[in-house]
Amino acid sequence: MEKTLVLSSDEVKRMIDKRRFFELKKYLSEILPPDIMELIDPLDITDKVIVFRLLNKEIAAEVFSLLDHDDQEELLKQFGEAKIREIIGEMDPDDRTELFDELPENMVKALIKLLSPEERALANRLLNYPEDSAGRLMTPEFIELNKNMTAGEAIETIRKTGLDKETIYYSYVTDCNGHLIGIVSLKDLLLASPDKKVEDLMTTNFVSVHTHDDQEEVARVLTKYDLVAIPVVDNDNKLVGIITVDDVVDVIHEEATEDFHKMAGIEAPDEPYFSTKFFILGRKRALWLIVLLVTSYLSSIVLKHYSYILQVVVPLAFFIPMLTGTCGNTGMQSATLIIRGLATGEIELRDFLRIIFREILMGAFLGVILGLFSFVRARFVDTDPFIGISVGVAVFVSVIVANMIGSVLPMILKKLKIDPAISAGPFISTLLDVTTLLIYFSIAEVIFNVRA
Amino acid sequence: MEKTLVLSSDEVKRMIDKRRFFELKKYLSEILPPDIMELIDPLDITDKVIVFRLLNKEIAAEVFSLLDHDDQEELLKQFGEAKIREIIGEMDPDDRTELFDELPENMVKALIKLLSPEERALANRLLNYPEDSAGRLMTPEFIELNKNMTAGEAIETIRKTGLDKETIYYSYVTDCNGHLIGIVSLKDLLLASPDKKVEDLMTTNFVSVHTHDDQEEVARVLTKYDLVAIPVVDNDNKLVGIITVDDVVDVIHEEATEDFHKMAGIEAPDEPYFSTKFFILGRKRALWLIVLLVTSYLSSIVLKHYSYILQVVVPLAFFIPMLTGTCGNTGMQSATLIIRGLATGEIELRDFLRIIFREILMGAFLGVILGLFSFVRARFVDTDPFIGISVGVAVFVSVIVANMIGSVLPMILKKLKIDPAISAGPFISTLLDVTTLLIYFSIAEVIFNVRA
Repeated sequence: MEKTLVLSSDEVKRMIDKRRFFELKKYLSEILPPDIMELIDPLDITDKVIVFRLLNKEIAAEVFSLLDHDDQEELLKQFGEAKIREIIGEMDPDDRTELFDELPENMVKALIKLLSPEERALANRLLNYPEDSAGRLMTPEFIELNKNMTAGEAIETIRKTGLDKETIYYSYVTDCNGHLIGIVSLKDLLLASPDKKVEDLMTTNFVSVHTHDDQEEVARVLTKYDLVAIPVVDNDNKLVGIITVDDVVDVIHEEATEDFHKMAGIEAPDEPYFSTKFFILGRKRALWLIVLLVTSYLSSIVLKHYSYILQVVVPLAFFIPMLTGTCGNTGMQSATLIIRGLATGEIELRDFLRIIFREILMGAFLGVILGLFSFVRARFVDTDPFIGISVGVAVFVSVIVANMIGSVLPMILKKLKIDPAISAGPFISTLLDVTTLLIYFSIAEVIFNVRA
Repeated sequence: MEKTLVLSSDEVKRMIDKRRFFELKKYLSEILPPDIMELIDPLDITDKVIVFRLLNKEIAAEVFSLLDHDDQEELLKQFGEAKIREIIGEMDPDDRTELFDELPENMVKALIKLLSPEERALANRLLNYPEDSAGRLMTPEFIELNKNMTAGEAIETIRKTGLDKETIYYSYVTDCNGHLIGIVSLKDLLLASPDKKVEDLMTTNFVSVHTHDDQEEVARVLTKYDLVAIPVVDNDNKLVGIITVDDVVDVIHEEATEDFHKMAGIEAPDEPYFSTKFFILGRKRALWLIVLLVTSYLSSIVLKHYSYILQVVVPLAFFIPMLTGTCGNTGMQSATLIIRGLATGEIELRDFLRIIFREILMGAFLGVILGLFSFVRARFVDTDPFIGISVGVAVFVSVIVANMIGSVLPMILKKLKIDPAISAGPFISTLLDVTTLLIYFSIAEVIFNVRA
């Protein structure tokens, strides 16, 4: 069971107001950084500053890394120079890169000046990698070994240098040019006899990523090979860092959220719900809704064009929402299956023909079932059998078309290097509205034999 | 860079046909199990059986774990008893549980008989935990230490017993009743002086999960605390297993896929796209589509009820798809934001009032903008200003309502312990069609002053 916190944020606030700092300090030392973060999140900025004074520097740096970027910025403005130096100095390089990424430029310049010369050089180097790349995600704190060491010497090296490393469970064997030639696990070193050579224990059968690879690619490779950490090499093929699985878990969550938002037609806000400013989110949402609203102009044009049929056979209008709804839903289903398959790497573009074939069959299957159902359903609303026939045939044809568009569109977008996730949801349903209405009224025109 | 495979599946097939087994065996020993899996995936079953003969037993078990359940079942039918015993015996207990979970019951019974008595008892115990629970996901292969050991003795224990353990990087300290009292990392053991007591090195400030906790909860806790492994305790609070982060990464992918599918109204197929049988997927898709089609009966009823207005003012029909589309999209946006926030744990039910307040403001903001846009847009389609006013006012009111329903519905479902993901997409848009049409025609009725 996850520990239940003994104190609530309100109680922490009251302790601060009553200056019961000793007691609070003791309590904070008994809980884990993610819990401290949750506890102080609702507090106002001056109370947060006080809590940070009560934490030791390692914990302070960890809690600080977990806060929202807005809070981090506010706190840095409140902290004295010594406190800033302490926290920034103690943060992991990858967390620090992420922080600098989000802060205003002049603030980053001021902060970088507070770092030691080596850390400053490192921070500048990491910030030079493209956003969302492996270079931004990696930490340069890994254990480097020489292939001629013995297992015993290797373990001794790990004991001496391991304290500040991101992981000591995998060591990276490099040649004199800094090229990665093998990986050896602490398990293998520890289970081997101490005089065995690292060269004989390391595996040369490993995967690595490049500094410029996208973080989504990093997540894919790490997941595929079930790794705890993956080495990152630069343009000269030199080992420059490692990425550990905990950072990749965050990437996986982030990328899934991004896809969910894109599919709902929200131009992906990259902050959590409550941290996103109202008008930023509002603008992002409104933008897509307006685009779709303007696009749906086409459906009005189609309806206006066929208004002579509607004037004669008013009941045809009763089934418009059902028709556009059913086809939108069908298209959304096939689009989601393909988008998710592409995202997890389980569907690839070379499967194109196989998917088309499968989805034609699926469309026909769904078309027959839904066509029959909607024919029956139409008879309940209106007694004219020709209405039922028009609706049933229209559903049959448009479900096949909708299913096809839903599965083909994401693959075309992927081919054009556009994120396929945007094709689902609102986008596809607006597009399908027009096709569905065209099909419906063309069929009705024939069945009722009405001419303009 | 990920290694590019030298041979394609076709070439492997040709090597098998030409009986160039020695060469193929050498090649397979140079690539990693996930790559072997991809390479043999397109081969037919007899060729797969041949490849498995060429793999050593550890690699064979790993590749076997990675295959689709259909392939696993087929292969087990082809393998001799010795081969089955070898592969099943070598598999990790958690992978074995997953396999048994998917195979037909009589086959599982036969397989369990082939296991050693201890493994048989273990398999039966693990299979007794509920599906998708921590008990199913865990492995009982962890390192157990006593608090009175020294660091040196602990490392010696790890060296002796570590070979078959899922991880040797964390050891679990238990008391005489098997209750977990602390966790110590190999890092701390290795960096400490060898005569230091485990008791002084272990942390007692740890989190654990319960055997019956849902795998989604396991993923949430492990992600929150950035853990590599999490201990699992049973009803008596005894330590019975651990779950490692690599298995959780799979759970995160799986749960995200499940939510994507639910949001698209596909009753979550739990197999990848191509492995799902056509009619199983077809039935699942059709089921939801039929439910929604029947539900959309309500929208036809509303339209039929107001047909006297449509008969007089036909152009009102031109804007039905635009209206239902815009409101569906708005509801989908807010539902997605809330559903995803609930899934990542970043929104909680106690935020209810705060969300309502925020979404009322957001609805009003979007309503004003979209109302104005649709008023202008309506004027382009039809010159009657009263049509434009009806459309604009209807969009304003229904966008506010849609936004509210979209954000409240997932929270109500969550409260009722129903997965909120099902409320997005098709479900919400069908529901909103009805409300939107009711609002539209009530407003038009007043503006055009038409009575039935």
